Amino acid sequence: MSPARRPTARDYQELLGFRTALRRFLRWSEDQARAVGLTPVQHQLLLAIKGHRGESAPTIGELSDYLVSRHHSVVELIDRAVDASLVERRRDEADHRVVHLLLTKLGEERIEELSRMHLEELGQLRRLFPAED
Amino acid sequence: MSPARRPTARDYQELLGFRTALRRFLRWSEDQARAVGLTPVQHQLLLAIKGHRGESAPTIGELSDYLVSRHHSVVELIDRAVDASLVERRRDEADHRVVHLLLTKLGEERIEELSRMHLEELGQLRRLFPAED
Repeated sequence: MSPARRPTARDYQELLGFRTALRRFLRWSEDQARAVGLTPVQHQLLLAIKGHRGESAPTIGELSDYLVSRHHSVVELIDRAVDASLVERRRDEADHRVVHLLLTKLGEERIEELSRMHLEELGQLRRLFPAED
Repeated sequence: MSPARRPTARDYQELLGFRTALRRFLRWSEDQARAVGLTPVQHQLLLAIKGHRGESAPTIGELSDYLVSRHHSVVELIDRAVDASLVERRRDEADHRVVHLLLTKLGEERIEELSRMHLEELGQLRRLFPAED
């Protein structure tokens, strides 16, 4: 990727505005997760399971991709989410080495609640993106 | 803020797509900062100084707002950036209790280099936002 043109004063202002909006959004989002009794990463795990597009529920490998996290970290995250009754494991019927992750009823409730709030907030965040030239 | 409508399967997919893109962007951005010898937070500090809109260079309070960080953390961040010759302090001429933060020549070079790369990446990230209904 070749370096772009020299940034203007307005470019710097826009980059800063974007980052500040992003930090506020992420802070807000973390607070929302905690308000319903989840850690911010548990919220992201539930969203990854719920938003997965595929014929079957996602595997640990697929969840690692969504979360941009290492396999080992995701396994620990899942362990804690299983303990909290948010998530359950199910072995693949054709290949027993493969594990799929599903939401429990509680997990479904939590991600629906959080996603309702985030859909609104995302609409607001979108407006902060400067229009393309 | 009242809860929005019940999310659809597509809503969950879009929320997940947005978060995964965001995580990849932030990971990429952190790697770029390290590649030019900065920590990710030093990069954000330089951008906050450079992107500040105002008659004079930003104060610690203004930088705390941009960085969504506490005053104490920003002071420590500035101390290390001064040690690294990226930033310098200047007392306000009218009110000596107020300190403004400026970029050094090295700081200017680093933020220009990083911002060139980020302007391109930001253009790509923008495309990932689903169009508004």
